[in-house]
Amino acid sequence: MITGEHTMADGAAMRRALELATRGPASGVNPRVGCVILSPHGDVLAEGWHRGAGTAHAEVDALSKLAPGAAQGATAVVTLEPCNHTGRTGPCAVALIDAGIARVVYAVADPGDHSAGGADRLRSAGIEVTAGVLADEAEAFLDDWLFAARHRRPRVTMKWAASLDGRAAASDGSSRWITGQQARADAHRRRAAADAIAVGTGTVLADDPSLTARTSAGELLDAQPVPVVFGRRPIPADAAVTRHPHAPITLRGADLTGDLRELQRRGIRSLFVEGGPTLASAFLAAGLVDELLVYVAPMLLGGPRVAVGDLGVASIAEARHFDFAAFERLGDDLLVVARPIAIRPPARSTTDTDDAASSSTSVKEGN
Amino acid sequence: MITGEHTMADGAAMRRALELATRGPASGVNPRVGCVILSPHGDVLAEGWHRGAGTAHAEVDALSKLAPGAAQGATAVVTLEPCNHTGRTGPCAVALIDAGIARVVYAVADPGDHSAGGADRLRSAGIEVTAGVLADEAEAFLDDWLFAARHRRPRVTMKWAASLDGRAAASDGSSRWITGQQARADAHRRRAAADAIAVGTGTVLADDPSLTARTSAGELLDAQPVPVVFGRRPIPADAAVTRHPHAPITLRGADLTGDLRELQRRGIRSLFVEGGPTLASAFLAAGLVDELLVYVAPMLLGGPRVAVGDLGVASIAEARHFDFAAFERLGDDLLVVARPIAIRPPARSTTDTDDAASSSTSVKEGN
Ligand SMILES: NC(=O)c1ccc[n+]([C@@H]2O[C@H](COP(=O)([O-])OP(=O)(O)OC[C@H]3O[C@@H](n4cnc5c(N)ncnc54)[C@H](OP(=O)(O)O)[C@@H]3O)[C@@H](O)[C@H]2O)c1
Ligand SMILES: NC(=O)c1ccc[n+]([C@@H]2O[C@H](COP(=O)([O-])OP(=O)(O)OC[C@H]3O[C@@H](n4cnc5c(N)ncnc54)[C@H](OP(=O)(O)O)[C@@H]3O)[C@@H](O)[C@H]2O)c1
Repeated sequence: MITGEHTMADGAAMRRALELATRGPASGVNPRVGCVILSPHGDVLAEGWHRGAGTAHAEVDALSKLAPGAAQGATAVVTLEPCNHTGRTGPCAVALIDAGIARVVYAVADPGDHSAGGADRLRSAGIEVTAGVLADEAEAFLDDWLFAARHRRPRVTMKWAASLDGRAAASDGSSRWITGQQARADAHRRRAAADAIAVGTGTVLADDPSLTARTSAGELLDAQPVPVVFGRRPIPADAAVTRHPHAPITLRGADLTGDLRELQRRGIRSLFVEGGPTLASAFLAAGLVDELLVYVAPMLLGGPRVAVGDLGVASIAEARHFDFAAFERLGDDLLVVARPIAIRPPARSTTDTDDAASSSTSVKEGN
Repeated sequence: MITGEHTMADGAAMRRALELATRGPASGVNPRVGCVILSPHGDVLAEGWHRGAGTAHAEVDALSKLAPGAAQGATAVVTLEPCNHTGRTGPCAVALIDAGIARVVYAVADPGDHSAGGADRLRSAGIEVTAGVLADEAEAFLDDWLFAARHRRPRVTMKWAASLDGRAAASDGSSRWITGQQARADAHRRRAAADAIAVGTGTVLADDPSLTARTSAGELLDAQPVPVVFGRRPIPADAAVTRHPHAPITLRGADLTGDLRELQRRGIRSLFVEGGPTLASAFLAAGLVDELLVYVAPMLLGGPRVAVGDLGVASIAEARHFDFAAFERLGDDLLVVARPIAIRPPARSTTDTDDAASSSTSVKEGN
């Protein structure tokens, strides 16, 4: 839904702004944002985009290309609500006000903890504000960043490999290989698509995984998620993960919500949790999983080594409900993709202004 | 592979004999068999079929329609190897010899414990014997009966319903309903296709199931498998299963192979094992499952109530391997059909003559 007046020129300029945004870096703390400054007649006066944390925001980048006074009465078309936050750069809302901009058109509201409120500030300064132009495109483009900003944590994909009876290993702990080559290659491709990959110390100590994303020939893929190890026990100095292209992040895991917030603050928008069973169960029990990837092998193992342990579900009425989103046959194995039926964003402080918008969005994402 | 001479008339007569066989009863201890007696010129002299245990076998039924001496020099075309067993009727092989039959053509060898050996007996009497005519059609027609006769037990289909993490119930034991209406209706349709349905006493005592096959509206389906309860504990006098259209069969379960042989002796060719987890694990550990139906619900339960308990698998090298034969989405749930990669028939006594044939067949069935 678009709030406020808008013109054909606004739409064209927004499409251009989205193009400009793609020039920025796809990962990190900050979103990719583009900006076009239009004259009152709809002519393009300047373009800008954000080049990553510590550099000018898109609006400021565009304004910097204009002579002083040239933006007087102009329209700024920007893919994300101008920020209201003083960080390494000043608030964009103030920069736009100071430049004499008369109208601001944006696609998606800024859900950031500190950065939201730009639109209100602009309106208070008498600037006409239109929101929601090409909102769906911008939402899709900023997908993981918006998710992380709204939920104050990365989007969590949890993967496990199990036998048809839900065991992650045989009684003696042996688990190489439950699934076949195609399933493992698929998991590596999906690993590579995440900003970070997590395991518990139990898995590090038992399996000494490298936590790299590799081809089936064992070569490193281009994209390498940052390894994250949860737990208090130290990582052995000679562990394979210490030779990962990225330095491992270690987190205690005593407060998973706080740990995930910390990962989001470090610019991690998507986290691939690979287990083991103890860590997986803790994430699931805390309701911190957005997507499940279960690689099911056509075998039975029985015994005590279940892929998921206790979830605090006492009766069937308390079951954690998911939707099966997809099934894929991978060689002899089956990949089941499931999503929780409702993801609740964490409780928000009362000073937040976008509760309604944020919770309706999260219901959509949960389906 | 056909062994021995055969003519066009043999094939046509065998097709007719298979038609005649369908007139017999589809369940029970004995197979459905048809027989056609041909003159040396290939004209049909008489037809017969078996009407069930205690009645004449197909060959004897056909011969009974001829005047004494009329079968002299004739050919008997019969869907199953003539038996060599004196039960409620005499051996068919002897009846054919006594009638002066010159040639016998049959489709499938008799794998029966006591009844096999007819072909040898006929040959010793100087009768020309041809085996394997329309063998594939006859095999398919006698499918469950042949399986039961060869393996000395019913074909076992095991069904369970579980959460995506392999739990059959929540921690408190509650399990109604893990799967939805469509999955339950599918299971009832498959129940109805089996000769018998089995549970352990644990399930009888916990759930008091009726063990009938019903429509989703709760009406009884036409076919009702015989209820079988495994375990030493007595069935309560007021248990729902005591009101089943068929009287329940109770078996101790201390020797599952022996119990299954007993069921086969009683004419049960296919058994649908519905659990619970203890009985299911015992069947699986003993390698007595020919098909698995796992109804997977899109939920996680965690906790101790696994659908499959211990299987005696110590390391991954000892895993029980299956093939995924089919996946079917049923409402919100997923049905996984799996078959063991190799089914070994039980060890056979040294007096058996058809070891090779029987084991090559069982490999085919296992794939
Ligand atoms: N089949 C599969 O997909 C798969 C995947 C991975 C692993 N595995 C198998 O799983 C086994 C290891 O199992 P595991 O359960 O010990 O491994 P794990 O889940 O990787 O590690 C468990 C450890 O995680 C730490 N941890 C951090 N945050 C936690 C929290 N909130 N709650 C609970 N624990 C937390 C604790 O370590 P501290 O005590 O150090 O604090 C805990 O002991 C290995 O045999 C491995 O082969 C299988
Ligand atoms: N999700 C599902 O698909 C499903 C299906 C069925 C049941 N369930 C649930 O399962 C629970 C009952 O579990 P359960 O494991 O106690 O039930 P069960 O497997 O039906 O019964 C176990 C009993 O079977 C008898 N038994 C016979 N032969 C045996 C053998 N060879 N080895 C071991 N036991 C043998 C023993 O009884 P004796 O001690 O009398 O000899 C044993 O105690 C209920 O809560 C029910 O709701 C779930």
